[in-house]
Amino acid sequence: MSQDSNLQADYPWIKTPLVASAPMLNIATAPLSVAVSEAGGLGFLAGGFDVSPLESNLEEAVQLVKQSTRLEPFYAGTGILPVGIGFLNWGADLTKSIATIEKYRPCAAWFFGPKSIPDDLRPWAEKVRTVTDGKTKIWVQIGTVAEAIAVAEALSPDVLVVQGSDAGGHGLAQSASIVTLVPEVKDALAKRQIKTDTISLVAAGGIADGRGMAASLALGASGAVMGTRFLASSEAKIARGYQDEVLRASDGGTSSVRSTVYDRVRGILSWPARYDGRGIINKSYIDAVNGMSDEENRALYEEELRKGDLGWGPDARLTTYAGTGVGLVNERLRAAEIIANVIQEAQDIIRRLKE
Amino acid sequence: MSQDSNLQADYPWIKTPLVASAPMLNIATAPLSVAVSEAGGLGFLAGGFDVSPLESNLEEAVQLVKQSTRLEPFYAGTGILPVGIGFLNWGADLTKSIATIEKYRPCAAWFFGPKSIPDDLRPWAEKVRTVTDGKTKIWVQIGTVAEAIAVAEALSPDVLVVQGSDAGGHGLAQSASIVTLVPEVKDALAKRQIKTDTISLVAAGGIADGRGMAASLALGASGAVMGTRFLASSEAKIARGYQDEVLRASDGGTSSVRSTVYDRVRGILSWPARYDGRGIINKSYIDAVNGMSDEENRALYEEELRKGDLGWGPDARLTTYAGTGVGLVNERLRAAEIIANVIQEAQDIIRRLKE
Repeated sequence: MSQDSNLQADYPWIKTPLVASAPMLNIATAPLSVAVSEAGGLGFLAGGFDVSPLESNLEEAVQLVKQSTRLEPFYAGTGILPVGIGFLNWGADLTKSIATIEKYRPCAAWFFGPKSIPDDLRPWAEKVRTVTDGKTKIWVQIGTVAEAIAVAEALSPDVLVVQGSDAGGHGLAQSASIVTLVPEVKDALAKRQIKTDTISLVAAGGIADGRGMAASLALGASGAVMGTRFLASSEAKIARGYQDEVLRASDGGTSSVRSTVYDRVRGILSWPARYDGRGIINKSYIDAVNGMSDEENRALYEEELRKGDLGWGPDARLTTYAGTGVGLVNERLRAAEIIANVIQEAQDIIRRLKE
Repeated sequence: MSQDSNLQADYPWIKTPLVASAPMLNIATAPLSVAVSEAGGLGFLAGGFDVSPLESNLEEAVQLVKQSTRLEPFYAGTGILPVGIGFLNWGADLTKSIATIEKYRPCAAWFFGPKSIPDDLRPWAEKVRTVTDGKTKIWVQIGTVAEAIAVAEALSPDVLVVQGSDAGGHGLAQSASIVTLVPEVKDALAKRQIKTDTISLVAAGGIADGRGMAASLALGASGAVMGTRFLASSEAKIARGYQDEVLRASDGGTSSVRSTVYDRVRGILSWPARYDGRGIINKSYIDAVNGMSDEENRALYEEELRKGDLGWGPDARLTTYAGTGVGLVNERLRAAEIIANVIQEAQDIIRRLKE
């Protein structure tokens, strides 16, 4: 299977094709991210918009890496932590984040959601490169061709995470799926002769198994990020009610919807206006569509928190962020099984297509 | 490359993988549909919601087929016309349509947009099969897993056209892209043991070149339908202004939008409520978002018609239905070139992925 030599050089423990786990807020903590890297993928820790819990997560990740036969030699030899960190740049504190990166030297820093793209990301990219002497690679998530060009020209990232409309959780309210976005980004960079030999494209949004992976490679990506699939992993830090809802939901294109209501009921109001989030349709959404005020909707959400695991579901109110691939996720698996299955299935598909 | 033996048996002139052209209203007339089949694809004539012009289109198609070295022997030997017809079932007259099918015996009848799915399609499927003794194959366009299961169980179609959210023109207002929809439909049919050996899946929505085709095959489809790509074919019956706008537009995920406004300004008000259409953002859309009444918006549209080719564009009002793949369409080509390019590129990708 075709290899991306930049990815292989930067993350020498990975298998081909690259499977990365998304830095899902509150869920992608040390156990999941290290398990993904341990299995030959690239795990991202969620740094989010409030980086105060990040150091304790990284401490735990360091301990887990030291216990890993696959990862420990790389870490001992390079001092680079074989997991990445994802930041929500509209909220994350730059100074604290850079200090943390300098101290823990993650293999990658993933930027997403700045107030202004690419301008607000310039100091992030510069400082990350300075404090780790370029060892921490720069990943930037984009959702349009214009964003891809602007980021590529301004920052020369190592990886562009090309996120399509099927993705769960946050993304652009208005975008194409990876079916057209990945090829159009690829063409646009090539046409402008922008470092196409050094910027790898990684697809995100709707990839939940080897079929999505093989499709991503066919579209021109070097690998794929999966979020929803890892929500149903054993290592995800996720409430049982949330995980059960991910396993239950099907027909992802109609059972999920893009909306800002799931932020509003939780009082998260600082995302730049161009973003919303895809979640499974529940009572918060239905009530909002029917005209309920945010104040009342939020109060009902707060009450629902008392129900614990019973607070998730189509007739409940706790948020189930998930992508349209949710219907392809029907089994709780270990991260290692997920990654092995995706790689094997993608390879089988490519072999069969050739026949 | 993997073949679908049902498709090969039913349409013996096709090349692998199957490229079908969408039955785009007013645009997919005899020259385009016959050119597509002549090139080894499967061309669909637009029957639409008003089938009164259909017979004259079919007369022209018959004449063109008789002049085709590739198609004439099949037509002479079987009496089956090697082009299909697409119907918008919420409007098309059943009796007239069946009489036309009996007379011209197209190789396929494609159903889309019934008021009730699958119930309103039962008489269509039954009568088509009766009057052509099963020679006219039944294609049904679906946009959710639930629709796919219902249609497969009720009608045993020969082909399910699995349309994702990237598609241009009409489709479900709420849906996934083919990235998740094709595999989830495939799994859902297999799980219910519904004729998976006799129902072929053909992907639609966002496929504009060999990358989209190779991705469709990886996702589990046996071929792909292209609409937007054929808008920029030499044989499309399309205004120069419309075609130029398709060639100009880029960044399809943000330059296009799903909306009902493009129907409303043209006084087309009978589509079932679950559908809308994807078109390039223009003044009709912007004004509607800013609160202009449909009446005023429609009056401005009517005025714009006088501008002819200058009536298309982001600062104009005539409708440019197109999918998110519009940014991949940068060159006017003959249908035969489009098809040859797609097949060649898909084969090259699959070969390269295997290396």
